[in-house]
Amino acid sequence: YIVEEVMEGFDRNKLETLLKQRFFYDQSFAIYGGVQGLYDFGPMGCAVKANLLQEWRNFFVLEEQMLEMDCSMLTPEPVLKASGHVERFADYKVKDLKTGECFRADHVVKQFLEKLEADPKTPQDRRDEARRILNSLDNLDGAGLQEVIVKFGIKSPQSGNEISEPQQFNLMFQVSIGPAGNIKGYLRPETAQGIFVNFKRLLEFNQGRLPFAAAQIGNSFRNEISPRAGLLRVREFTMAEIEHFLDPADKSHPKFASVAGLSLPLYSAKDQMAGLDATEKPLGEAVSAGVIANQTLAYFMARIFLFMVRCGVDRQRLRFRQHLSNEMAHYACDCWDAECLTSYGWIECVGCADRSAYDLTQHSKACGAQLVAEKMLAEPQVVVANEAVINKGVVGRTFKADAVHVTQYLSSLEEADLNSLATELESLGSASREIGGSERKLTPDMVSVRRTERTVHRLEFVPSVIEPSFGIGRIMYVIFEHSFRAREGDEARTYLSLPPVIAPYKCSVLQLSNNPKLREMATAMSQALTQAGLSHRIDDSSVSIGKRYARTDQIAIPYGVTIDFDSINKMPATATLRERDSMRQVRVEVEKIPGIVQQLVQERLTWAQVMEAYPVFEQQETIKDTDGN
Amino acid sequence: YIVEEVMEGFDRNKLETLLKQRFFYDQSFAIYGGVQGLYDFGPMGCAVKANLLQEWRNFFVLEEQMLEMDCSMLTPEPVLKASGHVERFADYKVKDLKTGECFRADHVVKQFLEKLEADPKTPQDRRDEARRILNSLDNLDGAGLQEVIVKFGIKSPQSGNEISEPQQFNLMFQVSIGPAGNIKGYLRPETAQGIFVNFKRLLEFNQGRLPFAAAQIGNSFRNEISPRAGLLRVREFTMAEIEHFLDPADKSHPKFASVAGLSLPLYSAKDQMAGLDATEKPLGEAVSAGVIANQTLAYFMARIFLFMVRCGVDRQRLRFRQHLSNEMAHYACDCWDAECLTSYGWIECVGCADRSAYDLTQHSKACGAQLVAEKMLAEPQVVVANEAVINKGVVGRTFKADAVHVTQYLSSLEEADLNSLATELESLGSASREIGGSERKLTPDMVSVRRTERTVHRLEFVPSVIEPSFGIGRIMYVIFEHSFRAREGDEARTYLSLPPVIAPYKCSVLQLSNNPKLREMATAMSQALTQAGLSHRIDDSSVSIGKRYARTDQIAIPYGVTIDFDSINKMPATATLRERDSMRQVRVEVEKIPGIVQQLVQERLTWAQVMEAYPVFEQQETIKDTDGN
Repeated sequence: YIVEEVMEGFDRNKLETLLKQRFFYDQSFAIYGGVQGLYDFGPMGCAVKANLLQEWRNFFVLEEQMLEMDCSMLTPEPVLKASGHVERFADYKVKDLKTGECFRADHVVKQFLEKLEADPKTPQDRRDEARRILNSLDNLDGAGLQEVIVKFGIKSPQSGNEISEPQQFNLMFQVSIGPAGNIKGYLRPETAQGIFVNFKRLLEFNQGRLPFAAAQIGNSFRNEISPRAGLLRVREFTMAEIEHFLDPADKSHPKFASVAGLSLPLYSAKDQMAGLDATEKPLGEAVSAGVIANQTLAYFMARIFLFMVRCGVDRQRLRFRQHLSNEMAHYACDCWDAECLTSYGWIECVGCADRSAYDLTQHSKACGAQLVAEKMLAEPQVVVANEAVINKGVVGRTFKADAVHVTQYLSSLEEADLNSLATELESLGSASREIGGSERKLTPDMVSVRRTERTVHRLEFVPSVIEPSFGIGRIMYVIFEHSFRAREGDEARTYLSLPPVIAPYKCSVLQLSNNPKLREMATAMSQALTQAGLSHRIDDSSVSIGKRYARTDQIAIPYGVTIDFDSINKMPATATLRERDSMRQVRVEVEKIPGIVQQLVQERLTWAQVMEAYPVFEQQETIKDTDGN
Repeated sequence: YIVEEVMEGFDRNKLETLLKQRFFYDQSFAIYGGVQGLYDFGPMGCAVKANLLQEWRNFFVLEEQMLEMDCSMLTPEPVLKASGHVERFADYKVKDLKTGECFRADHVVKQFLEKLEADPKTPQDRRDEARRILNSLDNLDGAGLQEVIVKFGIKSPQSGNEISEPQQFNLMFQVSIGPAGNIKGYLRPETAQGIFVNFKRLLEFNQGRLPFAAAQIGNSFRNEISPRAGLLRVREFTMAEIEHFLDPADKSHPKFASVAGLSLPLYSAKDQMAGLDATEKPLGEAVSAGVIANQTLAYFMARIFLFMVRCGVDRQRLRFRQHLSNEMAHYACDCWDAECLTSYGWIECVGCADRSAYDLTQHSKACGAQLVAEKMLAEPQVVVANEAVINKGVVGRTFKADAVHVTQYLSSLEEADLNSLATELESLGSASREIGGSERKLTPDMVSVRRTERTVHRLEFVPSVIEPSFGIGRIMYVIFEHSFRAREGDEARTYLSLPPVIAPYKCSVLQLSNNPKLREMATAMSQALTQAGLSHRIDDSSVSIGKRYARTDQIAIPYGVTIDFDSINKMPATATLRERDSMRQVRVEVEKIPGIVQQLVQERLTWAQVMEAYPVFEQQETIKDTDGN
C-alpha cells in the first residue's frame, strides 16, 4: 500500500474540524492554553470510547471467560525496577540550547535525514548514506545519535539553534507517595505489571489451572518528549491488555481450529528485511511454516483482526507486522503489531507479544515470591539432585557468631555452584568464598555434597505470557479516519460511517416542526427508546430537517426517526425511519420502531430487510431551512 | 440508629476473609509488601465495579440524557490554583519525632479525646471538655490543634513518642509534565474540574440551552496522610460525578413531580445542632419547608437514593445528612451527603452539593474565558450603564509612550470604579491612580463619564452547578457489608446476597460428576449463556456439589444450573435451576434456561413466578464430597 494512494481525496483538516466541532475530543484545558499530549473526550468521543470498551469486554472477557482486573496506577519503584522500566523505559532527548525546548533525538535526526534524502540537490552518495542511517535508526544509542548530529550538523528543527547532546530521558512520571515523601513511585507506563504481581492470586482463583487469561482496561502514562499527531502520541491513555498465561512447553490453543482458515495480511520480519510486501496467508499455514511462532499467538491475532474490523477498522488498511529484533521491547521474545494505515502512515494499534517468562521471573527474583504453576506429569519422573550436607558443629566452632551466614550461604547454593564448590574442596582441600562481607575459608569437614533422588509427580514451572495490548485512543482515531466520508456531489457534507455498535447514539429523534403535537409524539418516542436501552439524541432545533440530518450524520447516528404531520394525522401512527449511509427512508408504525432499531443495532436485522418489509418513503434532503434560517 | 445494634452478629473479619479469599480485592503490590491506601480489584471486584458503573450509566447518563465526558487526570497547576485546591485542599499532619511516621493531626486528637471521654476514671469536667472539643474539631486550624495537643499532652498513638506541631499537607500528588520539567501539575483530586473547564464547549454542544448535565466516570487521587479502613479511605479511587448546570434564578426541575412523594430519611443541619435524629420526610414537603434548598437538589437526592437501593444498599441504613457550615468544602454553598451505616459508622458515599457559580467564576477570573450562558428575557429590559469617554488626544500628549496603559486602564474600569473616578474628578479637579506601575495624575479633560441606555433581549449569567458525586469504592464496600449473610444454622457458610444486576456472574454451570456426557452438556450450556450475553462461571472441580454451591454463593452468583444424570438420560433434556438466597431449585428444559435467567436478571420475571411455573426439585445441600474429598 502506498499512503498517498489510499489517502487520495482524504482531507485530514476536514476530519479534524468535524471531530472538534461535534466535540468528539479536544485538547485538555484548552481555555488555559492546553497541555501537549493531553486530550479530553467530549460527549461523542466518550460514548464511542465507552462502546468500544464494552464491545471489547464482550468480545474478549466474556466470550473467552477471562479474569478481569482493575489495578492501581500509582506504582512503587521496586515493581518497575524489577520489570526493567526504571532502567530501560527511556528515549533520548535533545535540547535547543537557546530556547530550552526539547525534542526526541531520533525524531530530529529522522526528520532531517528524510528531508535531505528527498532534496534533489543532495548528491547521490550523501542520499545513500542518509537512507542507510534511517534504516538502522532504531539501533542507535545516545553516542550513535550524537555522531550523526555532529556529522550532518543537525540543528534545532524549529529555531535552527544548536542542540545539546542526546540525553536519556525516562518516560515515566515520578510521584512521591505518602506524607513523609519516602515512598518513591511512578504512574504505571502499562497496565500489565498489575496483573503480573497478582499472578499467584489469579492462579488460585482459577483453581490452579493453566492456561488462563487475565485482562485489564485502564489508564497508563508516558511523559512523551514532544507529543504530536493528535490522539496517536499522548501522555495519558487508555489501554486494554490481556495476559494469557500458559505452559511454555505447550503453546497450542484449543480454539485454534476455528481460526486456522482465516487469512491475515502478514508482514514478517524476514519479508521486511528482504524488502518484500505483506502477504495474505491462512493462519494455519503461517503457524505450520513457523512464520508465527505458535497457535496461541496466532489465535489472538485472529481475534484482534475480527475485533478491529467489527469496530469499524477497514480490513484493507490493517496488517500484522512482526517486530525486527532491534525494535523488540526489552521484555518480548516475539511480537506482531496490528498496524493500521492512516494519513500518518502505518500506525501500531495493538501489540501482540510473547513476553515468555520474563516478567514473572523478574518479579520472583525481586521480591522472593514463587510465581510458578504446577502440572501433573504424564509419568512420574525421578529427579536427581545434589544437596549440601552441612556439619553445623564444625561451622559453628570455626565461625562463631558468623556461623549463621555461612550456613545460610551453603544451603542457598544452586546446583552448579554446589558442584564447583565440591570439586574445589576435593582438589584443593579448601575453598575461599565471600560470605557476609568477609572472605571465609571453607574446608571439606564443614560441608559435603550428597546425591539425592526424588520421584516427582508434578512439575513446577514459570508460565509464559502471550500479551495482546490495545491502544484504545489510537484505535478510535483510526476508526474515525476509516469511517470518514463525504456525500457524493456535495463534498462539504461530511459524515462518519461508524458501525452502530460503536456509534455514540443509536438513533436520532426529529420532529418536522415545532407543533406541540409533534413534540409530544417525539417525547413519547424518546421514552420508548430509553426503555429499549437505546441511546438517542433529540434534535428539536428550528433549522431545516435536511440540516438536522446532516448534523446527525456528522455524529454518526446510524438511524433517525422523524415525526411528521402524517404521524399525527393518519392512523395507525407512523413515522419515517432513515438509515445514515444510504439516506434511504421507510415509513413504519411508531410502535414498532424501537424494536426494529434494537434489532438493527444488534445485527439481527439488516437495513435491506427493513427496506423490503416497509414502504419506502421518498424525500429530497434539502439543506434549506423550512423557516428560512 | 445505633451502630452496635445494627451490627449485631456482623463479623467484619468474616466478610474480609471472604472478600480476600474470593479475590474481590486485595492490597496492591501485596507480593512487594503492599502500599497503604492502594487496592487492586480482582476478577470478582472488577466485575462488580463494571456492573455498578454500567448501571450508573444507564440510570443517570442514558435516562437523563447527560453529556458524558472523559478528561485528563494530569492537570496543570493553574487549573487547580483557580479551583482553590492548591491553597486549600490540605489536612494537618503530625510527625512522630523519633520514628518519622506521620498521622492526621485531627485523627490523633480525636482518638485521644474519645478514649479519654470513655475512660470512667476521667473526672467529669475533663470529660466535658473533651466532648466540647470533639464537637467542634472541624473548626480547628493548625494552631488550634497544637493547643489541644499541648494541653492534653497528646503523644504518638503507636509509639507514645513526642509528636511535631501540626503542619499543613496538601493532599494532591505533584507531577512534573514534559521533558524540561517546567510544567508543574497534579493528579486531579476530583473529576469535576475537567467538566468545568469544558463548560463552553458543552454548552455549545447542547445548542446553548440550559439546564443540562455533564457526567464523568474516572479516577482521582488523594495522598491521604494515613489511609486505613480498607476501601473507605484510599489514595486512588474511582468517582462518578455529575455537574448539572442551571440558571441560578430558577432551580426547579421538570421531573420533580415524579419524586415529590418519595420519603427520604433527612438529617438536616438544624436537627443535628439540636441533637435530634434523622426524620423521614416526603421530598415535596422538604423543599416547600426550605429544608432542602431547591427542587433540583432534591430531585438528585431522590435519584441517588433509588440508585443506591437498586444496587444493594439497605434502605434502612441510608440517610441524607446536611453539612454543617463548618464542614462545607470551600466551593459548596449547600451539601447533603448520602451516608450509609456500616461497621465503621456512618460513611459518606455520595455528596450532593450546590457549588453555586463558584467554579465557573474562578476559572473565568483565572484564564479570562467567558464561562457564561444566555437566556431570553420574558420582556426586553432597558439597561442603564455608565461608560468612559476617553479623549485620546489629551491622554496621548500627556503620557506619550505610556498612553496605551492609561487608555486600557480607563476602558477596563467597572461601573463602581468609574463612578468614584468621576466624582473625584468633579470634586477635586484631578485623581491619582497607579497605572502600569507608576502613579498617574488624571484630569477631567482626559476622561468623562457618559450615561448610556441599552435595550437587551437576552441576559448573560454564570450558571450554578448542582453536583452529585459518587465514591464508587465506598459504595462497593457498603454493598458488600449490607449483603453479607450466613446460612441459618450454619454460621460458617457465609455468602453475598448481591442483586443480580450487580453480581459478578449472573449464573453458574455445574455438572454433577466428571462424566464426559455431562461435561459436553455443560459446555453447550455455557455457549448458550454466552450467546444470551450472560456472564457465568463453570465450576467443574471435583468437590461435592454442595461445596460448589457454597462457593458460588460466596461470589454472589444469583442463579445456578446443574447438569445431572436426569439431564442426559431423560427426554426432553432438563437441568436444575437454583436461586442463591432461597437455595430452592426447579427442573427446567435445558433450552429454556438461558432465556429464563436473562429475564430474571433483567427483572422481567421473579423467582416466585419461576417456582410456580416449573416443578420444584428437592435436594439436600450436603457439603460432603461425592468422592469423599
